[in-house]
Amino acid sequence: MEMDVASVQAFLDEHFPQGYGRVEAVAPQTARLRLTVADEHLRPGGTVSGPTMMGLADTAIYVAILANVGPVAAAVTTNLNANFLRRPPVRDLLADARLLKVGRRLAVGEVSIHTDGDAEPVAHVTATYSLPPR
Amino acid sequence: MEMDVASVQAFLDEHFPQGYGRVEAVAPQTARLRLTVADEHLRPGGTVSGPTMMGLADTAIYVAILANVGPVAAAVTTNLNANFLRRPPVRDLLADARLLKVGRRLAVGEVSIHTDGDAEPVAHVTATYSLPPR
Amino acid sequence: MEMDVASVQAFLDEHFPQGYGRVEAVAPQTARLRLTVADEHLRPGGTVSGPTMMGLADTAIYVAILANVGPVAAAVTTNLNANFLRRPPVRDLLADARLLKVGRRLAVGEVSIHTDGDAEPVAHVTATYSLPPR
Amino acid sequence: MEMDVASVQAFLDEHFPQGYGRVEAVAPQTARLRLTVADEHLRPGGTVSGPTMMGLADTAIYVAILANVGPVAAAVTTNLNANFLRRPPVRDLLADARLLKVGRRLAVGEVSIHTDGDAEPVAHVTATYSLPPR
Repeated sequence: MEMDVASVQAFLDEHFPQGYGRVEAVAPQTARLRLTVADEHLRPGGTVSGPTMMGLADTAIYVAILANVGPVAAAVTTNLNANFLRRPPVRDLLADARLLKVGRRLAVGEVSIHTDGDAEPVAHVTATYSLPPR
Repeated sequence: MEMDVASVQAFLDEHFPQGYGRVEAVAPQTARLRLTVADEHLRPGGTVSGPTMMGLADTAIYVAILANVGPVAAAVTTNLNANFLRRPPVRDLLADARLLKVGRRLAVGEVSIHTDGDAEPVAHVTATYSLPPR
Repeated sequence: MEMDVASVQAFLDEHFPQGYGRVEAVAPQTARLRLTVADEHLRPGGTVSGPTMMGLADTAIYVAILANVGPVAAAVTTNLNANFLRRPPVRDLLADARLLKVGRRLAVGEVSIHTDGDAEPVAHVTATYSLPPR
Repeated sequence: MEMDVASVQAFLDEHFPQGYGRVEAVAPQTARLRLTVADEHLRPGGTVSGPTMMGLADTAIYVAILANVGPVAAAVTTNLNANFLRRPPVRDLLADARLLKVGRRLAVGEVSIHTDGDAEPVAHVTATYSLPPR
């Protein structure tokens, strides 16, 4: 790995202090984030908002890129596609990202989000990042 | 129109108080929202965050549905696809939504987001809503 | 399973004779199709065309629905999102579909396509089907 | 324009002989293609297949890029997102593409497909192309 959990978390804290979730694990091609759900993430009726889940998924793929490629601060999301599958209850969310491709110019990943303790995904996201020249 | 600007805004304020943007206009198949950018919408480096733009786009399509179909509180987003085109500066964003389909069970819309005063879009979003039985 | 490999294949042959690929396996939530690449699937330069891969992925999710839900001829694709990851060589393609959700009105699945003998995916697809009332 | 209708059509005929549709018009940021529907494009029940519409949309954005950027044979589609809105009857399809961005490395476009003579779109597609260094 190019960066471990602590160094990825430190990088996020420095560069993206308003980020979503804490890094729980990184491994070849993968990363896991946990979001402790707070009032700012909720929608009326007691469910987690769509933008919160999309922000979490976006961050999870970015963390997988950081851990596997190194500290590329200038990577930017160019496309994000989200399918919302079930209404998440107000509990911690886990986001499991997996890189599908890391090319010279683009990285693509997918993320499955589920509620801690439930097996069924609440959302599934794919996203593309444009990578700066290395 | 089933609802005008004031009644859609009142509906949003009641049901989605943490929403994104203010309703500026509604018309057959379309709606326009304005987001006054604040600290909570920013990313380091002085740009609007992706989740902010996705939340704004999602709300804009919902507003177009409300104005054209009526107050369907139980409509839920099932898919959202975003293309991020340019880095938005820290200025008001305008989101122009257009409904592509309003069926019995699904509504689909597209949104173009641009910075107030610039013609070029900073993001383009399509989204699908599942509609409750009417 | 509601349908096995032979009965799903017979259903496809009857209802979608111009379909993509042969059913190799079905299991809870999953299905595998194989496409024997022919001239009609190729693009100049010796690679499989995008529409061929999208058609294969679309069929693979449909097969997973048939096998797990039963013969729903009236299911229709409402959204398909494809990420093209690598240039496939002219060899058999395998499409592995997995259902992310089977609801009352919508089913969502994801598909990973890879060349027979290669581990890396050449394309990744998610798609939504609208299901008829059962 | 970098290429006119005749030169774009000649380029397609040479490089993509199995392409979808004929070029009807090109203009700044836009292109229109017409598909004369034939047996190979149909699904049982008398409707145009999804892969046909996705192939047509993909080609329409490529034509808009060619007309506006010049003959970039090595451009490749990296993402395509399709929303299927209505069941198209068996009549000519028109695809209207519009470029949302032409950057140094990526081009993004959207396409609205409708049946000749009907105003309502049958499908809406966005797609991203990776451009070779120029």
